[in-house]
Amino acid sequence: MQEIKLSGFGGQGIIMMGMILGKAATLYDNKYATLTQSFGPEARGGACSAQLIISETRILYPYLTAPDILVAMSQEAYEKFEPTLKDGGILILEQNLVKPHNHEGRVREFAIPATRIAEGLGNRMFANMVMLGFVCAVTGVVPKEALVKAVKDTLPARVLEKNLTALEQGYQQGLAQLEQKR
Amino acid sequence: MQEIKLSGFGGQGIIMMGMILGKAATLYDNKYATLTQSFGPEARGGACSAQLIISETRILYPYLTAPDILVAMSQEAYEKFEPTLKDGGILILEQNLVKPHNHEGRVREFAIPATRIAEGLGNRMFANMVMLGFVCAVTGVVPKEALVKAVKDTLPARVLEKNLTALEQGYQQGLAQLEQKR
Repeated sequence: MQEIKLSGFGGQGIIMMGMILGKAATLYDNKYATLTQSFGPEARGGACSAQLIISETRILYPYLTAPDILVAMSQEAYEKFEPTLKDGGILILEQNLVKPHNHEGRVREFAIPATRIAEGLGNRMFANMVMLGFVCAVTGVVPKEALVKAVKDTLPARVLEKNLTALEQGYQQGLAQLEQKR
Repeated sequence: MQEIKLSGFGGQGIIMMGMILGKAATLYDNKYATLTQSFGPEARGGACSAQLIISETRILYPYLTAPDILVAMSQEAYEKFEPTLKDGGILILEQNLVKPHNHEGRVREFAIPATRIAEGLGNRMFANMVMLGFVCAVTGVVPKEALVKAVKDTLPARVLEKNLTALEQGYQQGLAQLEQKR
């Protein structure tokens, strides 16, 4: 079982990332998945988070206790959720939007300038796809083929090509960073 | 505690309805709420559902067992989820998209042509707002003022006016139907 926390601010496509990862895992990788949002004072001011659980078996309790993987696309999200990340977990940051503290080997850290890359493709709305490709490469939480199928399932045809390009760029950066850390 | 199942097909704004209701309950009505999506084969072909729980106290187990309220905006969703609705529960249908069976007094049934009303406002994308207003009136699950604040929180300013008009039309239809049934 893998617990994944996705976080940032409204409009970054955080929930969409969760839905696509969930579909990839269930429809195209034979797993079970649930996606949960809890609301509270943090829903004010545009903060946004979702919890995805991916499991080999039926999920009986879909609340995260401590995520294995944390994706933080805003400083606020990072500050709030980093302390909950499991020791040895994977921390994935929006490089230009989050300035991390020193984690001193507690977690494995990756960062990508997803928004800037998306802007290079013509629209910052692709940032979530860049991030999704990156997450796929560095965590292996779903196979890339499953992810591509889920994106094709979810997005309208007219925006598909650019989104898949964004996904691919994020994926390649992820592979390159993994290679470097070896 | 109230359990609400929202269902239909992709593009109807089902998840958005859940988010707005969740925000209304938590930020503007002092409750707790969780919104959960489970993925599975039903995520193929555009079916879409979400489970919202609204509670006076912290929610420890966010899975629906049997919803108190079912909103079905497609025939497929209706067929699938109606049997899970609690006895005495509230069934809310998209009138032109769902042809119900005879429920013989098992549940209280309401229906609104949300999509047609939305088209009358210029865009079928407002159907979820019409439905949201209707749900608010017939169930009282959140106060109308809280719902309006949550809509204002969630949607960009340039589309707000039409969405609030849609919400109001759904709400008024709901009140009228309640009156009739008295």
